[in-house]
Amino acid sequence: MPHAVVLELIGDKPPLYPAKYAHGLFFVLLSRVDPQLSTKLHEAPRKPFTLAPLTGRNGALLLRFTTLDDGLFGPFLRVLLEVAPEGLPLGDTPYRLARILATPEGHSMAGACSWEELKSAPRQREASFFFQSPTIFTTSKPGGRTRYTSLPDPRLIMSSLLDKWQAHSPYPYNPREEAALRELFELDLELAAFKNLRFHRIQAGKGFFPGFTGEVTLKLHSDSLEVQEAFGQLTTLAFYSGVGAKTPYGMGVARVQPFPQG
Amino acid sequence: MPHAVVLELIGDKPPLYPAKYAHGLFFVLLSRVDPQLSTKLHEAPRKPFTLAPLTGRNGALLLRFTTLDDGLFGPFLRVLLEVAPEGLPLGDTPYRLARILATPEGHSMAGACSWEELKSAPRQREASFFFQSPTIFTTSKPGGRTRYTSLPDPRLIMSSLLDKWQAHSPYPYNPREEAALRELFELDLELAAFKNLRFHRIQAGKGFFPGFTGEVTLKLHSDSLEVQEAFGQLTTLAFYSGVGAKTPYGMGVARVQPFPQG
Repeated sequence: MPHAVVLELIGDKPPLYPAKYAHGLFFVLLSRVDPQLSTKLHEAPRKPFTLAPLTGRNGALLLRFTTLDDGLFGPFLRVLLEVAPEGLPLGDTPYRLARILATPEGHSMAGACSWEELKSAPRQREASFFFQSPTIFTTSKPGGRTRYTSLPDPRLIMSSLLDKWQAHSPYPYNPREEAALRELFELDLELAAFKNLRFHRIQAGKGFFPGFTGEVTLKLHSDSLEVQEAFGQLTTLAFYSGVGAKTPYGMGVARVQPFPQG
Repeated sequence: MPHAVVLELIGDKPPLYPAKYAHGLFFVLLSRVDPQLSTKLHEAPRKPFTLAPLTGRNGALLLRFTTLDDGLFGPFLRVLLEVAPEGLPLGDTPYRLARILATPEGHSMAGACSWEELKSAPRQREASFFFQSPTIFTTSKPGGRTRYTSLPDPRLIMSSLLDKWQAHSPYPYNPREEAALRELFELDLELAAFKNLRFHRIQAGKGFFPGFTGEVTLKLHSDSLEVQEAFGQLTTLAFYSGVGAKTPYGMGVARVQPFPQG
């Protein structure tokens, strides 16, 4: 079941590179519980989790951890609670785990949703994305080129979510459905509006990457109920999967507000 | 020779729909000098001029007129001066022509540049676009769909300029060069940064259209001197041609700042 938890951590000083340290902490913890899984995940091109520091109040450090994989969520929480009394290392500083917020009541960016619930998410024709951390799309092009897109291109947003759904959902679309969705996202999706769009260049893993934050409204010009259903499912997934590339390094945190169907 | 002039107009009240009225005025003037040309232009899918109201000081109305076509610039200016004493009708109000600013010294958005100068514009690998009026790209898609993109997609910016160059320059790229440029703009262009990006929905001609304004820096990842040369030529053209669609209705006004070659 896709999960999003927010860890409230307390330390003597704010960490210099919270996203980087959080990534390190995650793998330290995971290697204690299952070294093989840790190595496998570390090398996986498509990671079934996201990790991002959130802005906390009163100097508390909030780390958001989401996963699309049950085999990861349970073990991770267990070892987190085991290690917490020793202090959780972020960089060279041990942090105290003050709280784990796992529900929307505890933190607006926490919650859980089964794949069955995602699958039966209501149909949508329009949705607003709030990109809370810098978001980027990676596109491989001929000749070994890797190009980055730091704009909320509707097609790239939805095809990134479709990629994540196909990689992790127990209910993937079949190849014919997947191809039809990609085509309709190319043809029938439009950016209806954007607000507070900002450009950032941030460290994520080994390098610095461009990305955008802000509010973006997508509109689907299609009467196909199947596409509207997929649009509803995939936009609901975004909260747990993140959007675009480098989501294990703090990028692509998004909240989505569906529009009431009229 | 591509020209950009700024007309300073003075009236009793600010016009309600300056872009729309300016468009009307232009065709009224043109039909007086050459009714056939006026009809031909009105029906042309790709118009060799742009018209946009600019923000003026002290309540003066500034209208910017650019053209890529010598056959249009001379006649238009002549009739403008002929009709000016009667007052220029914008909507139902006659405006007095106070000044014609035709050089960068008169107004930063005025100037002229021969096609030969454009052709020998210095090579560039990076340039910043200042989109001063809402800018939009129209893309025709299969099944009679017309879709609008209101984001500064680097490929759409440069292919729009290439379209305009090919339609109006006496030195078009040959088909092989054109195809190579389109491919390299697809593969090797990246958005290096953006600033103050805002979304608008404005009236342009018969409908309302979405568009963006703001500052956008494009970077070319290509060592090909031909592409860098074309990038320099096309980014210089942008000042006169505008960028994207609906440029005769006030959209797509852009100023470009090249980066010094390092």
